[in-house]
Amino acid sequence: MRILIIGAAGMIGVKLTARLIADGALAGKPIEALDIVDVVSPTVPPGAPFKIERRAIDLTVPGNADVVIASRPDVIFHLAAIVSGEAEADFDKGYRVNLDGTRYLFDAIRKVGGYLPRVVFTSSIAVFGAPFPPAIADDFFETPLTSYGTQKAIGELLLADYSRRGVMDGIGIRLPTICVRPGKPNKAASGFFSGIIREPLAGQEAVLPVEESVRHWFASPRSAIGFLVQAAALDTAKLGARRNLNMPGVSATVGEEISALRRIAGEAVAARIRRQPDATIARIVAGWPANFDTQRALALGFRADASFEDIVRAHIGDELGGTWVH
Amino acid sequence: MRILIIGAAGMIGVKLTARLIADGALAGKPIEALDIVDVVSPTVPPGAPFKIERRAIDLTVPGNADVVIASRPDVIFHLAAIVSGEAEADFDKGYRVNLDGTRYLFDAIRKVGGYLPRVVFTSSIAVFGAPFPPAIADDFFETPLTSYGTQKAIGELLLADYSRRGVMDGIGIRLPTICVRPGKPNKAASGFFSGIIREPLAGQEAVLPVEESVRHWFASPRSAIGFLVQAAALDTAKLGARRNLNMPGVSATVGEEISALRRIAGEAVAARIRRQPDATIARIVAGWPANFDTQRALALGFRADASFEDIVRAHIGDELGGTWVH
Repeated sequence: MRILIIGAAGMIGVKLTARLIADGALAGKPIEALDIVDVVSPTVPPGAPFKIERRAIDLTVPGNADVVIASRPDVIFHLAAIVSGEAEADFDKGYRVNLDGTRYLFDAIRKVGGYLPRVVFTSSIAVFGAPFPPAIADDFFETPLTSYGTQKAIGELLLADYSRRGVMDGIGIRLPTICVRPGKPNKAASGFFSGIIREPLAGQEAVLPVEESVRHWFASPRSAIGFLVQAAALDTAKLGARRNLNMPGVSATVGEEISALRRIAGEAVAARIRRQPDATIARIVAGWPANFDTQRALALGFRADASFEDIVRAHIGDELGGTWVH
Repeated sequence: MRILIIGAAGMIGVKLTARLIADGALAGKPIEALDIVDVVSPTVPPGAPFKIERRAIDLTVPGNADVVIASRPDVIFHLAAIVSGEAEADFDKGYRVNLDGTRYLFDAIRKVGGYLPRVVFTSSIAVFGAPFPPAIADDFFETPLTSYGTQKAIGELLLADYSRRGVMDGIGIRLPTICVRPGKPNKAASGFFSGIIREPLAGQEAVLPVEESVRHWFASPRSAIGFLVQAAALDTAKLGARRNLNMPGVSATVGEEISALRRIAGEAVAARIRRQPDATIARIVAGWPANFDTQRALALGFRADASFEDIVRAHIGDELGGTWVH
């Protein structure tokens, strides 16, 4: 089995690469080769039991998608995207990367004819826009309130149509907000959801700009990688024509995040969170989904973290070597 | 007020042109000029109380959308599309006209900057795919089962995002199946819904390929034109970020269609319908929506025909000069 990861230099791409190396197999079949591509050259980790080829290539240049799929991978993970904030700030770039780039890839597959790779597309809960029901089910409509969400929703529609027409065997998974996101704090409006766990565990102060009653929808990076692997292995006949689905997750308030941190790491760590209300961030976050009904994904075998404590423990285990700054 | 109709040579475009000429005004303002464009040159009807300019132009050629909006119309009716059957038969043409053509138009508007025309986009109930709830509400998800429906769903998403970003003031209306469609029988799978009314009233035999229990969702051409005019006049602030909506219509079975025809035109006319079951057509039609919950559109002032009898009467009045072949 040959696998392609597009967007391999990003956080999810790096972790997926590591997981595939650790497993040596996908969907019960041994991995023979892995192609990792991104706009910047991804790092090839050592120790893989199969050949890894890396390439720095811009998928938004017409013709480049043909190059990317020239090795005819059996499974394609399409993770590449301009994130929400940047797609909002740069209208043209967002549509070029998130819409045109995705369409070029799908059209390149179509041009081959009779190829039919499994394509796993990372969509987002940003395809939904407030106001929401108490729990968003799979049959709730997509009325995104960002260009990023719009582009992901269009990607979902293309994936379903190209799959229906026998071009590819696609599945789109709407990832929850990834938490705890490793690395440095960034300026994303959602950054504090991870920051209030990550920074205190690292002995640093974290700023909380919203009320503790704010509720959101989370999955650990470890769970997100599990979703991708499951999506690659799934019998897509079970999806019928509805090839895009909400992933399971943990619905938690900021207060519940803090309680989980306190229970695991103690009061001194939790005390490193400083309240500093920010009306702009509070307003943005109010438009985000808080809870989902994911019966369909659960029935298909997708598994999320069991609790927000599990999310904190996954971060401590995967990023901090099992411990933290007391 | 200056108005542009794109797709003006089609059935709806011709009727909308006639309505605007008859009204001489739109949204309470006198019409000063009307631009009618299509891939073939639309006919200019006589007697308009304002100037009409016509143009044959292909919107899928980059740059042509700039030409089409050079007169800076205040209201743009975007009706142009490759229909369902052709979009399914010709993958490239469907995406080129229905997706690229629409995006070129919206991007041409964006390029002007600060222009903000009202854009009325005709979407379709084909954005929905079976299985359905008993009545499809506005918050039901879009899982189209045709490329045409996919392209219309993408058009809706673009319209909403470009409107949110202040490029234009868009509204998308999902038209029911237009019935009774005037003109000659065609090979569309949906053709019989109109044919079993139109042909008998014209003294000709009509073929019915499905059971009388088949239910579908209808609006007369007269109602469809009413929706367009209402959409152009609407205070879009009432739409919020959800700028696409189901239009009201009449949910009727084929049996109810025939009963309405019999009540209005008599048994001899209804007897011109010949049952000739067609399993292929029956299967296609089974995937189509049958009923909608259109509270939102009704609250916004959109009005459909009151019954299928009204739909038959609209056809007799608008197309047959008030009478039929006994």
